[in-house]
Amino acid sequence: MQAELNELRQAFAGRLLVDEADKAPFLTDWRRKWTGQALAVAQPDSAADVAAVVRWCAQHRIAVVPQGGNTGLSGGATPDTSGRTLVLSLTRLNKVRAIDTINNTLTVEAGVTLQQVQDAAREAGRLFPLSLAAEGTCTIGGNLASNAGGVQVLRYGNARELCLGIEAVTAQGELWDGLRGLRKDNTGYDLRDLFIGSEGTLGVITAAVLKLHPLPAAQVAAFVAVPDPAAALQLLQLAQSRLGAGLTAFELMSDTCIALVEKHVDSARLPLAERSPWYVLLEVSDNVDEAHASAAIEGLLEAALEQELATDAALSATLAQFQALWALREDISESQGAEGRTIKHDIALPISRIADFIDTTGTEIARRWPGERLVVFGHLGDGNLHYNLSPAADRLGAEHRAAFEALEQPINQCVHDAVAAHGGSISAEHGLGVLRRDEAARHKSPVELRLMQAVKAALDPHGLMNPGKLLPPNQEHSE
Amino acid sequence: MQAELNELRQAFAGRLLVDEADKAPFLTDWRRKWTGQALAVAQPDSAADVAAVVRWCAQHRIAVVPQGGNTGLSGGATPDTSGRTLVLSLTRLNKVRAIDTINNTLTVEAGVTLQQVQDAAREAGRLFPLSLAAEGTCTIGGNLASNAGGVQVLRYGNARELCLGIEAVTAQGELWDGLRGLRKDNTGYDLRDLFIGSEGTLGVITAAVLKLHPLPAAQVAAFVAVPDPAAALQLLQLAQSRLGAGLTAFELMSDTCIALVEKHVDSARLPLAERSPWYVLLEVSDNVDEAHASAAIEGLLEAALEQELATDAALSATLAQFQALWALREDISESQGAEGRTIKHDIALPISRIADFIDTTGTEIARRWPGERLVVFGHLGDGNLHYNLSPAADRLGAEHRAAFEALEQPINQCVHDAVAAHGGSISAEHGLGVLRRDEAARHKSPVELRLMQAVKAALDPHGLMNPGKLLPPNQEHSE
Repeated sequence: MQAELNELRQAFAGRLLVDEADKAPFLTDWRRKWTGQALAVAQPDSAADVAAVVRWCAQHRIAVVPQGGNTGLSGGATPDTSGRTLVLSLTRLNKVRAIDTINNTLTVEAGVTLQQVQDAAREAGRLFPLSLAAEGTCTIGGNLASNAGGVQVLRYGNARELCLGIEAVTAQGELWDGLRGLRKDNTGYDLRDLFIGSEGTLGVITAAVLKLHPLPAAQVAAFVAVPDPAAALQLLQLAQSRLGAGLTAFELMSDTCIALVEKHVDSARLPLAERSPWYVLLEVSDNVDEAHASAAIEGLLEAALEQELATDAALSATLAQFQALWALREDISESQGAEGRTIKHDIALPISRIADFIDTTGTEIARRWPGERLVVFGHLGDGNLHYNLSPAADRLGAEHRAAFEALEQPINQCVHDAVAAHGGSISAEHGLGVLRRDEAARHKSPVELRLMQAVKAALDPHGLMNPGKLLPPNQEHSE
Repeated sequence: MQAELNELRQAFAGRLLVDEADKAPFLTDWRRKWTGQALAVAQPDSAADVAAVVRWCAQHRIAVVPQGGNTGLSGGATPDTSGRTLVLSLTRLNKVRAIDTINNTLTVEAGVTLQQVQDAAREAGRLFPLSLAAEGTCTIGGNLASNAGGVQVLRYGNARELCLGIEAVTAQGELWDGLRGLRKDNTGYDLRDLFIGSEGTLGVITAAVLKLHPLPAAQVAAFVAVPDPAAALQLLQLAQSRLGAGLTAFELMSDTCIALVEKHVDSARLPLAERSPWYVLLEVSDNVDEAHASAAIEGLLEAALEQELATDAALSATLAQFQALWALREDISESQGAEGRTIKHDIALPISRIADFIDTTGTEIARRWPGERLVVFGHLGDGNLHYNLSPAADRLGAEHRAAFEALEQPINQCVHDAVAAHGGSISAEHGLGVLRRDEAARHKSPVELRLMQAVKAALDPHGLMNPGKLLPPNQEHSE
């Protein structure tokens, strides 16, 4: 293999890491949930060199694991333990290739971080609205490969809806230039959307043309106490009819979530006089100014209080207050992590069925696993819940850890079966990777699985692109 | 064949048309540009029966031509002249299956007309924003199969962006239930978007979950005189930054277009005191009320006049005025048709390159084909132009017809080469069908063609789904 790796080193510019210490950071996901092995880690400098690496791998029938910021939550970018795969790190493809403020497009390479994308847009007086916790580290290539979501999907869509064109390397190592900056293009199959969300199993996205939006003139947030999820849903309808596209975020969280944030984050405090079982954080973006935005949100809240959809509300009047309200929402994940082991679900439901789902599934979990704490929050405007659990407050000690971990599989199954019964999805924005791969296959129809396998076999006939991710390994095609 | 057709008749409910007179309406497109032959026309009543028909066709290796309202402009729904294909008409799949005003979704069968979809949404107090000239006849299945566009794409996206899930029959005659009403779902390959825009060449869409929007409280239109396309582009930028998502249409048209409408439509008149070489029709939709909408548009127009992006403007103050302004735009196609033979192009460009495209391509056409009239209009906000030509005003007689028709191919090539040089698309919203199939293949890279052919071969290995449409026939896979 040494001779072959030397040949690979000659085949492209950029770095080839073969020493264990150099490879290590690429072999474990950031949450340290999965650790694998790899023949080597290739870090090409250009799309042409990505193609050269993939061609070499195709020739030698070596599997490729594409990796961006390595911040995924489903194990989609970690190699398996065989040690026979090549990790293809895209982080050195880090150029902003072009910005066009008239076409409202930004062309970037796959390894540019999401935050750098946001910054480049903002410097040009534009908004790139994709926003999520890992934005300082995650890369736009990874965001597209996993069709990332986040907090403003309600208004602007997922990563998919924010991308007009891509450049990708096929499993054969050809470079496809699909970098079109067009709002309309009906000249054949939608290959762009096939690569987006395919988690590196069909090819490698090396660059993208992203869609920019006007920067809002002002943003105001409100933290609203609501009696229950059903009231939150009615508030969502009211907000949508009054604010239309001005409503740019609508987040739900239970009091358990906020109590955890208050416990683990010093500066956090509830901005309301009294506690409520549930809260909504909503955000309005406005094209006119702060006063116009505040008037719109005040009008909404008045109507909501009058209709008893809300019991109290706090409005941000300054940027610091705006950030403090958002921090209550954004710090939930980390605060829950600080509380001990977490059982996570990233689910989507038809919005009309969320209240019933929360009600019936909560009852069933309380019955089967009394005491374990539900930590429910998420992007209600998109029907996306992070339906998590933490151990019972009196079972936080290390001696209870194994017992709680043993609940993960049965609780997953219970929650996902309820999701399926409510017409939902078991992975809303995190993708399948290895974490949800088999569970997804269990819920898909045979027709859908067959269609997916046919697409995979057509574009990656030797099964070399990120094998074992997204789809269960197919014995026919592995070598 | 008679015995086999009898067998097919037994295999499904609904109608099987075999008499020439009965079949005739399904064998010619509505513009009478293409006429074919067919073994029979099947009109099943349900998705299960669509599957039964396709299964029978797969068994007997008979090609299937799916057809909706038969209003396409690219010949995608007309059978070839072999007489060996089956036309599969979806018009009897005409049920609205469900409406969910909390989830903001509408589930309809493929044969429901676009206008019926719009009406069902409006009756429920919601907006389904897809809108195009053929809406009274075209079906939502056809709209999705061809990823239709129209006038509000700027704000709401193409048919693709308005669809959350589909039900489809595969080339093998299996029924795939992908009718998910979810805003987020990352559980595998984006099969939905693969079927959308595939023009019936991968399978048959039988139903869809559509995305609804809030009904705007008020809509106001302005008809604006602008000196040239470059000024129109600056006006677009100004409108986007001031109105954000409130800007729901931005249409460009030359004075030639408006003169044709005035000539052929009795009630049409220019709402401005003086003529201008170019006009913009813009529309604002508002969540508050008419006064709020008018104030926003007046503020924009004042700024535009001040910055000399516009020279004059008329604003709609009543619904009748709103409709009259829109009629000036909507009657262009028919007025141009009334003028004689038309050479059409449906192109998309990066918005930043449109002014240069119009300038340089117009100059070249005037040089090579002096006198022939450019009739340029379109959805500037989406970068989509209907870049058409009519014969010179003194060459409208029948004796000039053949000479003008002979220009179609060279003018197509000239325009499409200019489109390619400006990074554009030769089919923005009409699809490829047979009309643009070979021309598209000429402009695609070998990599992209190979990827498309691989997808086609994977999902339709016997090449039975709408053969010869979208992709040039592949000798390997035809039988």
